[in-house]
Amino acid sequence: MTQPHSFLPIIRAGIDTYRQPVVYMREDCHLCRAEGFSALTRVRIEAGGRSLIATLNVVTAEGWLPPDTAALSIAAWNALRPERQGVQAEFSHPEPPASTSAIRNKVFGGKFDAASASQIITDMVAHRLSDLDLAAFVTACAGDRLDIAETIALTRAMTDAGQRIDWGTEPVLDKHCVGGLPGNRTTPIVVAVIAAAGGLIPKTSSRAITSPAGTADTIEVMTPVDLDITSMRRVVEAEGGCLAWGGGLDLSPADDILIRIERPLDFDSDGQLVASILSKKLAAGSTHVLIDMPVGPTAKVRTGAAAEDLSARLSAVAAEIGIELRVHCSDGTAPVGRGIGPSLEARDVLAVLRRSADHPPDLRDRALDIAGALLDMGVPDGRGRQTAETLLESGAAEAKFMAICAAQGGFHEPGIAPERAIETAGRRGRVTAIDNRRIAKIAKLAGAPGRQTAGVLLLARPGDTVEPDTPLYEIHAETPGELAWARDYARAGTSPFQVEAEK
Amino acid sequence: MTQPHSFLPIIRAGIDTYRQPVVYMREDCHLCRAEGFSALTRVRIEAGGRSLIATLNVVTAEGWLPPDTAALSIAAWNALRPERQGVQAEFSHPEPPASTSAIRNKVFGGKFDAASASQIITDMVAHRLSDLDLAAFVTACAGDRLDIAETIALTRAMTDAGQRIDWGTEPVLDKHCVGGLPGNRTTPIVVAVIAAAGGLIPKTSSRAITSPAGTADTIEVMTPVDLDITSMRRVVEAEGGCLAWGGGLDLSPADDILIRIERPLDFDSDGQLVASILSKKLAAGSTHVLIDMPVGPTAKVRTGAAAEDLSARLSAVAAEIGIELRVHCSDGTAPVGRGIGPSLEARDVLAVLRRSADHPPDLRDRALDIAGALLDMGVPDGRGRQTAETLLESGAAEAKFMAICAAQGGFHEPGIAPERAIETAGRRGRVTAIDNRRIAKIAKLAGAPGRQTAGVLLLARPGDTVEPDTPLYEIHAETPGELAWARDYARAGTSPFQVEAEK
Repeated sequence: MTQPHSFLPIIRAGIDTYRQPVVYMREDCHLCRAEGFSALTRVRIEAGGRSLIATLNVVTAEGWLPPDTAALSIAAWNALRPERQGVQAEFSHPEPPASTSAIRNKVFGGKFDAASASQIITDMVAHRLSDLDLAAFVTACAGDRLDIAETIALTRAMTDAGQRIDWGTEPVLDKHCVGGLPGNRTTPIVVAVIAAAGGLIPKTSSRAITSPAGTADTIEVMTPVDLDITSMRRVVEAEGGCLAWGGGLDLSPADDILIRIERPLDFDSDGQLVASILSKKLAAGSTHVLIDMPVGPTAKVRTGAAAEDLSARLSAVAAEIGIELRVHCSDGTAPVGRGIGPSLEARDVLAVLRRSADHPPDLRDRALDIAGALLDMGVPDGRGRQTAETLLESGAAEAKFMAICAAQGGFHEPGIAPERAIETAGRRGRVTAIDNRRIAKIAKLAGAPGRQTAGVLLLARPGDTVEPDTPLYEIHAETPGELAWARDYARAGTSPFQVEAEK
Repeated sequence: MTQPHSFLPIIRAGIDTYRQPVVYMREDCHLCRAEGFSALTRVRIEAGGRSLIATLNVVTAEGWLPPDTAALSIAAWNALRPERQGVQAEFSHPEPPASTSAIRNKVFGGKFDAASASQIITDMVAHRLSDLDLAAFVTACAGDRLDIAETIALTRAMTDAGQRIDWGTEPVLDKHCVGGLPGNRTTPIVVAVIAAAGGLIPKTSSRAITSPAGTADTIEVMTPVDLDITSMRRVVEAEGGCLAWGGGLDLSPADDILIRIERPLDFDSDGQLVASILSKKLAAGSTHVLIDMPVGPTAKVRTGAAAEDLSARLSAVAAEIGIELRVHCSDGTAPVGRGIGPSLEARDVLAVLRRSADHPPDLRDRALDIAGALLDMGVPDGRGRQTAETLLESGAAEAKFMAICAAQGGFHEPGIAPERAIETAGRRGRVTAIDNRRIAKIAKLAGAPGRQTAGVLLLARPGDTVEPDTPLYEIHAETPGELAWARDYARAGTSPFQVEAEK
């Protein structure tokens, strides 16, 4: 199939469109005329043997773009990696992506098979699908609209679309928390304990999807997480564990694309959640995976029934792809620790590892439960919890954590936000509950996770007795605008703290 | 609720983002720092008493944007209408749109009520929803996911969000064709006949959603369609009918926003289709509406069962909102007329109105059937079809059409595309079917409807006997690139013409 071809020099537009590849061309450009390109046309760009598909934005002739030149957004430039500014690129109409009919079929209530899943994920990773196509796919899979067979197909397709690491030995331990519980930052502690116990735990984590901080966001406050596979192997060989950001490793790259769409939409799907978790684990070479699943009315998993449902999905898919998986349900009725937001959570983690007098005991307990269960998966002698506690109390876990940070590029002490405001109870009574979703929203409006020190510091817990002037929480922000915005939201509706008058 | 406020001068970015409001701000701008704006943040902009919410793209400090200045995309500039370049605008975080939780509920399989529909449509029209939110809403309603109550709620909300015209008299006649049949351009003929008969038919039409030409695209080839309500009233008072583009009249403005998302996604929903049709009719003041519904395996409505289903939806909603509605099912197995694309379809329309010897008889018959049925809805004497035919044959309809065009701003003879290529049968046999979808796709790849003279001219019909070198159709394009692209697609897969060997 011959294609009409045309060339233009490409330059950097210096415009950040948040990962969506955009190309800017002038309305009077010969190529727009000849090819019939107009705004939002999908355009194929090839240079130096690499190609990508970008969305066209048309610049007026009086605009900033020189004649007969095309400019690439930051995401497009980074994906195409031209050798220099001004290099000639070839422009053409992309073939209509083969997967759009598979997506349409799913939108209209059909099922996809392994071949369709592979087609969709291949097109996704090659940037052949527009943001609207991706939003339609995410929506069509939302809630429980993926069955087990589709979830397995999606998991395999997502794994196959990226790198796979083989550690050459077993067991390779791993854990994952199904999110929704602000501050539940057990990972750095668990990795330190397991590695201190001699287990192999090459941990990759993700950044926040819809939460105020992902594990990678929190760890990044303390040490670089953007490792490539070579440096990850080096860290793991030296220390038995690592704390890497998975997004830098090309493990299940489709997952990052889906996250880019799910984050602004603020919803995802059970099936995609399972495929996201397990494709990353399979690609990372994990053989034994413990899933921490907090259950509570404002957590991601709200009821015992929902937890059973999701556990069944996870187990069914894990069995099919050869991963040994155990689900550990935990209390999800309130945030964990005191801090919510990258730096604030990092401070909690360090307090536990350092056995500080003011460490948050709930975070410590949860981390030890998970580390213990994971040790029992590797060596099923039922002594995991005890071993974990010993390693934490002896300082072995802290030493291991600092060694891992050193191997990854050094340790940094978390900072504190310059702008802070305390919210008080306003009435007398007892704190009966904290709304995870509202507290997370306040932390996000304050700037988390984009601003490392932004977030919320909890100053009271469920069960506490409070007076009207008792501080409940403190909002942390890096700018006055963000602080004001978060505080306005916090004061506008119901308080995230439920305070009931005592009888 | 107080808001942090900040000011920046705004200029035109001169970037066409196809109706999506985008604001460009520099990464080093004091306001980005103070407010915590980053790429894809939704930003509220207020100037001269008007406001809008735009998506932020961040420009690097070395980029084209002067320091401490914000630039607006063409869509954002036109929506805000600042009095001049450099005017100070106020920037703030928008309140989270109230309707996102209603959309999320729908995405997860819930139903929306009248209040939620109103909230969604109000936010949509105020540009408070992002393109991803809109894609999620369209997808969540896709297929048959809207029930009758939701469809009624959506229709009312869409009507209430814009202007409503009151003609002060009854009946106000109207027709609508449920699309999917390329070339089925009966509207200009029906309006000319009804107005010539003394009926009141203030017709508004839309542009193409996923087809190679909408009625407004075709009429625009011959006369201006971008009328405001005042000029529309003037034309209708003088001639009894008009041929206006509905999008310029603020009738059901949400419909145009939904279309902007549905077009690139290339799918819509039964419920949204009904709401789209009936909200426009209700807003336009129509009291008697005839729905032309072509049914065929590659038409929009594929089976008799689907037609019954859609008719039932249309009738149920019409009854509820006080419109008298009749559905006229027609043969949808092949394209109508010869031309597909704005100019080519306009030429077919003129051939019928002018009683040219080579007029397409199927287009003439369909237009007369519809005009007749519509006349019978107004005056139920069963003589509608006969009256319609007399008015066409006498030249009264042609004269009325020319008078309407003159009143709308003048008549232009349709042009012909400079680039053309004929596709032949390649084998001996009989044409048994034409695939509406493939032929529409070829016309779109050739440039229709953006390029007026682009499209496909059919040179054979089902039932014709052909030789290998018999021309089947001719692709028309305005540029060599588009011609090559359409021809490549046409030759790559199955031919849109099914040719079977004769026994």
